[in-house]
Amino acid sequence: MSVTAAKGFEAAGVEAGLKASGGLDVALVVNRGPLANAAAVFTSNRSKANPIIWSQQVIADGTVSAIVLNSGGANCFTGQQGFQVTHSTAEAVAEALGVSAGDVLVCSTGLIGDQLPLDKVLAGVSAAAAGLGDHGDDASRAIMTTDSKPKRSIRIGNGYTVGGMAKGAGMLAPGLATMLVVITTDVVLSSAELDIALRRATRASFDRLDSDGCMSTNDQVSLLASGASGVEPDLDAFGAVLAEVCLDLAEQLQGDAEGASHDIRIEVVNALTEDDAVEVGRSVARNNLFKAAIFGNDPNWGRVLAAIGTTDAAFDPYDVDVSMNGVRVCHAGAPDRPRTEVDLTPRRVELLIDLRSGSETATILTNDLTHDYVHENSAYAS
Amino acid sequence: MSVTAAKGFEAAGVEAGLKASGGLDVALVVNRGPLANAAAVFTSNRSKANPIIWSQQVIADGTVSAIVLNSGGANCFTGQQGFQVTHSTAEAVAEALGVSAGDVLVCSTGLIGDQLPLDKVLAGVSAAAAGLGDHGDDASRAIMTTDSKPKRSIRIGNGYTVGGMAKGAGMLAPGLATMLVVITTDVVLSSAELDIALRRATRASFDRLDSDGCMSTNDQVSLLASGASGVEPDLDAFGAVLAEVCLDLAEQLQGDAEGASHDIRIEVVNALTEDDAVEVGRSVARNNLFKAAIFGNDPNWGRVLAAIGTTDAAFDPYDVDVSMNGVRVCHAGAPDRPRTEVDLTPRRVELLIDLRSGSETATILTNDLTHDYVHENSAYAS
Repeated sequence: MSVTAAKGFEAAGVEAGLKASGGLDVALVVNRGPLANAAAVFTSNRSKANPIIWSQQVIADGTVSAIVLNSGGANCFTGQQGFQVTHSTAEAVAEALGVSAGDVLVCSTGLIGDQLPLDKVLAGVSAAAAGLGDHGDDASRAIMTTDSKPKRSIRIGNGYTVGGMAKGAGMLAPGLATMLVVITTDVVLSSAELDIALRRATRASFDRLDSDGCMSTNDQVSLLASGASGVEPDLDAFGAVLAEVCLDLAEQLQGDAEGASHDIRIEVVNALTEDDAVEVGRSVARNNLFKAAIFGNDPNWGRVLAAIGTTDAAFDPYDVDVSMNGVRVCHAGAPDRPRTEVDLTPRRVELLIDLRSGSETATILTNDLTHDYVHENSAYAS
Repeated sequence: MSVTAAKGFEAAGVEAGLKASGGLDVALVVNRGPLANAAAVFTSNRSKANPIIWSQQVIADGTVSAIVLNSGGANCFTGQQGFQVTHSTAEAVAEALGVSAGDVLVCSTGLIGDQLPLDKVLAGVSAAAAGLGDHGDDASRAIMTTDSKPKRSIRIGNGYTVGGMAKGAGMLAPGLATMLVVITTDVVLSSAELDIALRRATRASFDRLDSDGCMSTNDQVSLLASGASGVEPDLDAFGAVLAEVCLDLAEQLQGDAEGASHDIRIEVVNALTEDDAVEVGRSVARNNLFKAAIFGNDPNWGRVLAAIGTTDAAFDPYDVDVSMNGVRVCHAGAPDRPRTEVDLTPRRVELLIDLRSGSETATILTNDLTHDYVHENSAYAS
């Protein structure tokens, strides 16, 4: 289901021989209408892959008929030849479906710096276009790289449906989004309204996921609306349903992060501003020493304070409380309960940082730094 | 030798029982004059340890008679009790030497959040004061934590000497400095002149070392001048000698970084400004995916471009050249020589990033991300 749960969508996932490991590697999602409204957000990394450069042009008019995605190669820093591959892919989709190439989004994921074989991609597009149907599950598998499982989410609104799929296991840090995500819905909303809802939803979900601090060159979150339900929802109500799908997918990404043995939820409370809370949470999420300590089930709160001291957020380092899995180990910048009371053996870790400086809150999702993370990422290209 | 190479200095390193692993853990360096001029730079982390808070007051008047350092505990986030330990330590040194406590710098290193046992520290101070002599080597061993070897450096100027010792293996990232360093010299220079020379030297050495992106709470670099040589050198000439000592120590710190299997030298050339070059170099030094790739001897230049794309530096990501160990693997944002030509088996790795945007240069020193780094830092507190 996933991207084919909402009315008006068809999808396919096929094997085109792009992935060395084999398996499905080209996904196609088609919006059959009656509307073709869409919004998308992209990585804020200045080093952008060819499909990002292409898709940013496509989304400009808010009209999208289809999105084609491949694993097995990021098509990033592949020069003019690489851009031609993206362009030709969109044209092949357009021809097969009888739509404009300018209404076809393209996403790629895999190794940076390698050319995609155009002939295989085009054969994949043909096969996908010929096999369109209720194949959201195949599509969600075709975009996997180091993911151990597909990520899918569906929520039912008041007379309408929002469904999505995501991939991502490494280079997981916020740019705008940090992975490939396609969300479909059958609501009747304009592209401008979809854009507002999508930016709000990603800001509080994918933007708050920082698994390894490494921002990707290929991130894209696309939202396609068919209008096939005939329902024109209240924008805030739709936004809440969309946000649930985004957060569900973000948590699935966190749970499948490369090599991770802990899912760490960093909740920063009583900050002066939400930005301060995000900055403080992210400084901890990016601190290798803290992340390695969690891998070792070591409640090393000193590393939390060392990390947040590098930020510009408003707080007094000597008036901060830190709790781990419910045990307050630091109060007002001094030791509180003994570390030995903290049980870090569960996969899920709750870190609570009370800045005692205001009333704003933010939650950052991250993972620990493990032997397996190092192993997987030292061997990825080979 | 190290800190006792210059005329006018005595030192000691003793075992006070602070380190669980045993061994020397209290160091004392005394300036016998005739001058007692000094300068110091400190971590820019807002989460500062008690000895940093103390030493920043001591250095304010530019007069330092002695510096006492301990391993076995950072005395950071240890509350009022912790500050009293630092204060009492300085007073004990002052009493033993017949100087003012306000002229005694204090440095601590070890785990954050644990109290130092005052009785053991004071016994260590007594033993060190009683054993002062030409014991710079003992002093350099007494400040080691996870260091596998002491770091020492000596340079001879025109009629004067500059000698130093350093410790540091983890939490190695630039604040101002990123470790404990004591440098002594027998020149005749004012505290203000020493301050100028020290800031210049650290800016191009310790500040350019970023092993693991984690800024410490206890970093301090102190420069003590006795004037015992009677030589009043040209400030620039002295600065050059001092810079050599600082860079030598910084490279020793890099070479002994926790768990590292590669010393990576990131040279950024043709930047519009020096700040741009530093920002670009540091973004690569902090990219876990790049660092893990180097551990795996994988010349994954795509991760370099993904990292630098997150900066605000002036350059076009599609007009950048990247070379690894002399092989240009990326030219103008597209693949150049094959990755297979790059040999990453030596410990030393040279990464050259040509931004083609100006004429400024900066070099950042870092290390790879290894299984041993994760292991050592997941087990440090236990």
